[in-house]
Amino acid sequence: MVPHLITALTGPINELEQRMLESLPAIERWFRLEWMEHTPPFYTSVDLRNAGYKLAPVDTNLYPGGFNNLTPEMLPLAVQAAMAAIEKICPEAKNLLLIPEQHNRNTFYLMNVQRLMQVFHQAGLNVRLGSLDDSIKEPTTLALPDGGELTLEPLVRRRGRLGLKGFDPCTILLNSDLSAGVPPVLAGLHEQYLLPPLHAGWSVRRKTNHFHAYEEVAKKFAKLLGMDPWLINPMFARCGEVNFGDGSGTDCLMANAETLLGKIRRKYKEYGINEKPFVIVKADAGTYGMGIMTVRDPKELANLNRSTRDRMGVAKDGQEVSEVMLQEGVPTYERINDAVAEPVVYMIDRYVVGGFYRVHAERGADENLNAPGSSFVPLAFAESNQLPRPGVKPGASAPNRFYMYGVIARLAMVAASYELEATDPNAEVYE
Amino acid sequence: MVPHLITALTGPINELEQRMLESLPAIERWFRLEWMEHTPPFYTSVDLRNAGYKLAPVDTNLYPGGFNNLTPEMLPLAVQAAMAAIEKICPEAKNLLLIPEQHNRNTFYLMNVQRLMQVFHQAGLNVRLGSLDDSIKEPTTLALPDGGELTLEPLVRRRGRLGLKGFDPCTILLNSDLSAGVPPVLAGLHEQYLLPPLHAGWSVRRKTNHFHAYEEVAKKFAKLLGMDPWLINPMFARCGEVNFGDGSGTDCLMANAETLLGKIRRKYKEYGINEKPFVIVKADAGTYGMGIMTVRDPKELANLNRSTRDRMGVAKDGQEVSEVMLQEGVPTYERINDAVAEPVVYMIDRYVVGGFYRVHAERGADENLNAPGSSFVPLAFAESNQLPRPGVKPGASAPNRFYMYGVIARLAMVAASYELEATDPNAEVYE
Repeated sequence: MVPHLITALTGPINELEQRMLESLPAIERWFRLEWMEHTPPFYTSVDLRNAGYKLAPVDTNLYPGGFNNLTPEMLPLAVQAAMAAIEKICPEAKNLLLIPEQHNRNTFYLMNVQRLMQVFHQAGLNVRLGSLDDSIKEPTTLALPDGGELTLEPLVRRRGRLGLKGFDPCTILLNSDLSAGVPPVLAGLHEQYLLPPLHAGWSVRRKTNHFHAYEEVAKKFAKLLGMDPWLINPMFARCGEVNFGDGSGTDCLMANAETLLGKIRRKYKEYGINEKPFVIVKADAGTYGMGIMTVRDPKELANLNRSTRDRMGVAKDGQEVSEVMLQEGVPTYERINDAVAEPVVYMIDRYVVGGFYRVHAERGADENLNAPGSSFVPLAFAESNQLPRPGVKPGASAPNRFYMYGVIARLAMVAASYELEATDPNAEVYE
Repeated sequence: MVPHLITALTGPINELEQRMLESLPAIERWFRLEWMEHTPPFYTSVDLRNAGYKLAPVDTNLYPGGFNNLTPEMLPLAVQAAMAAIEKICPEAKNLLLIPEQHNRNTFYLMNVQRLMQVFHQAGLNVRLGSLDDSIKEPTTLALPDGGELTLEPLVRRRGRLGLKGFDPCTILLNSDLSAGVPPVLAGLHEQYLLPPLHAGWSVRRKTNHFHAYEEVAKKFAKLLGMDPWLINPMFARCGEVNFGDGSGTDCLMANAETLLGKIRRKYKEYGINEKPFVIVKADAGTYGMGIMTVRDPKELANLNRSTRDRMGVAKDGQEVSEVMLQEGVPTYERINDAVAEPVVYMIDRYVVGGFYRVHAERGADENLNAPGSSFVPLAFAESNQLPRPGVKPGASAPNRFYMYGVIARLAMVAASYELEATDPNAEVYE
C-alpha cells in the first residue's frame, strides 16, 4: 500500500529526496561515524510530518509501543536487529525481563508486548514479564484477542538485582515511559543492564532537550548535504513556569508563540510557501498525544476556555504540566484514503526495522493525530527502506520516499543519543 | 512456495526440529558465545541435504554466487547484515572493491555480482568492480539481461594497497574462489582488509579440513541438544595421492569407501533405516559440482571408464585432482514439483539472510544437483527463518523447518570459522 502523496511531484522535499539518494553511501557512513562515538537508544520510534516543503520529526519515543502494527514481513529485520543489540550488550545473556506499562490493559498495547516478547525470544532470549503493579502478587494471566495470553509476574528485588521468582535476567527492558516517576524497585540496579536508562523516562526527559540536540544533529547533517537545516528541523521555544489553571505564564507562551510564528513566516516567505503558520503547544514532558493544542494566533492563548485549560494542564498519569514546549507546526500533507496520515518509523538498535502510517480521518493536516480514532496502516518498510532505487523520478517511488523517512528518523535517534548523554546523571565528566 | 517434504511427518528429523524449537534461546546463545571466540566468514552459502533421518551440510562455499536467486523480500536482511559487518570491519570506509570471478561472463553470475553491488551500496559504500583479468586494460562494460550493466575496471596495485584508478578501498571483497591459485596482485595486502582471506581460496582450502572442523562443531552442538551428532554430521575419509589418469591411489579409494560404507550401514541398522548406503567421491579442493561421483560399491572405483576418469581428474580452472574426499552420501528427499531439491542457505556475517532450493529434474536423490540443468526456487527464508512457530506439529511448518536449516547452515559457518583459524598461515601461535 503506497500512500497518495499530494505533494509528491513538486517542491523542496523532492530535491531533498534526490540529494539523499545520490548521497546514500556518504549518509550511511555519516551514521556509522556517529555510532562510533555515541550509543543508539535500545529502541526508538519517531513520528514524522511531511509538509512537502519540509520533512521533520515531531516526537521521538524511547519506549515505543505499537510494534504489533508492523507487518509480519518486517519481523525478521526486527529479530536480526535485536540479535545485533544483544550481542553488543550482553552476549552471554539467557534471560530478558520485560517490564510493560503499569496500568495499560488495552489489548492493542498487550499485543505490542506480545510482539516484543516474540522478537526477543526469536533473537535468542528467555523473555518473561515483570509488573510494576503492586497488586500483582502472583503470576497473572491476561487474555489476548488472538487467543494467546500473557503472564505478568511480580518483580522480585534482591539488593542490586531485579528479577522474578526463579528468573535472573542479564538485561531489563522497560516498555514503560515512567511518566509517574521512577519506581523505587528500579533504582540502583548497578549489576544489570536497565534499558533504556531511567533518565529516558518522562519524569526526567524534556522534549526541548531532545529538540535542542536534534537541532545540532540537523545542522551537522545539513552541512554534509549542503542544504538548509530548516528543511528537516522544526523550530521551537520553551516556557518553564506555566500554570494553565491560574493562567500564570501566559505572557511567556504568547511572546514565544509570537516570535516563533514570525520566524516561520520569514521562512515561508523565503521559500514562497503559501501557508498560514501555526505553532503546536504541548507539555515539555509527556507523551500519548495528551495536552497538545494548535495555535495560529498568540491571542488564542490569552483566552483559553475552562475545558482547554483542564486538558492542557494535565499529562499522562495525572502529572501536572508546568513546563511547556512551543514547536513550529509542520502540517502533514500525506493522505491515505483521504484521511490525514503521518509516518511513524521504528528502530531497534541503529537499524530501521519498519514503520506505519498513523491515520486519522477526523483530524486536519495541522492537528495532532495521536488521538482516539486514529488507525494504523503498516507500510512495507521492510521491502523498501533499504532498497531505494536511484534514477526514479523524485517523489514517484515509495522506496525512495521511505529511505528518506528512515534517514530523518535515524537523525532523531542520533539526537536522542546526544540528549541521553547530556542528561545522564551518572555521566563521567572529563575536564 | 513451500516444498513438498515427503519425509515431513515422520522420522528423527522431526524430533530434531522439535528439540531445536524448544531449545531456541539456548541455541542462539550458543551461537552468540561461539562468535565471541571466533570470527564468522564475511559471507557463506551452505548446501544442505535432508534425508528425513538426517540433515547435513554437504558443501560450504566461502565465495558464494547466486545472491541473485534470493527474493527481493530477503534483501533488507542482507543489507542490514552487511551494515553490521561493515560496522565491525571498517566503519570509516567509503569504498569497497569487489573482485568477481576472472573468466565468468555467464549472465546469471553477473547478476549475482550486480546484486552484491546493490547490497553493499545500500549498506553505505561506494562499490566498484576490479578485474583479475589482465586483458582488461580499461573500464569495460558488460550488459545484463535486465538492461543494466556492470563496469569492470583494471586493478591498480601500489605497494601495499590495491585499488582502481581514483578509487582507494578500505576493504576488498573477493567473489572469486581462487581455484587457479593466488594472483600476485592480491598477495601482501597488509594495509587493507582482504575478505575472505586468501587461504579461504581453493588453492589452499580442503573440504576434509572443513568437515573435520564441522565434526567438532557438530559434536559440541549435539551435546548441547543431547542427541547423536551423526544426525547432522556426514562421515568422511580422505585419500591424498590419487591419480585418476594412471589409476594410482585406487586402493586407498576402495579401502576407504569400504570402511565408510560399513560405518553407514551400521548407523542405518541402528536407526532402522531401510536404504542402500552410498558414498560421494569428490575432489578435496574445488567447487562447482565438478569431479563428483556416487559410489554404492567400492568395486565401481576399480573399473572407471575413460570418460569418468577424465571427468574426475580435473576440477575447476583445469586444476589436476590428486587429493580426494569420500563423503557419506546423504540423499535429499525433498521435492519441488517432483524434481529432486536441496536447500541452500545464505549468510552474511553471522546472520542468515535467505536461501533457495536447488532443483534438478533429471537427477536422483543420491546425486549431485549442482550441475547443468539445475534451477533455483527462492524460499521465503526472510519471512520464516527467524520466525519459527512453537507448538506447530513437527514437519508441518515451513518456518520451523527453515529455522532448523538456518541452524545447521550456521553450524557449517562456525566450522568454516574454525577451519580458517586452523589453516591461517599468519596465525599467531601462543605456546
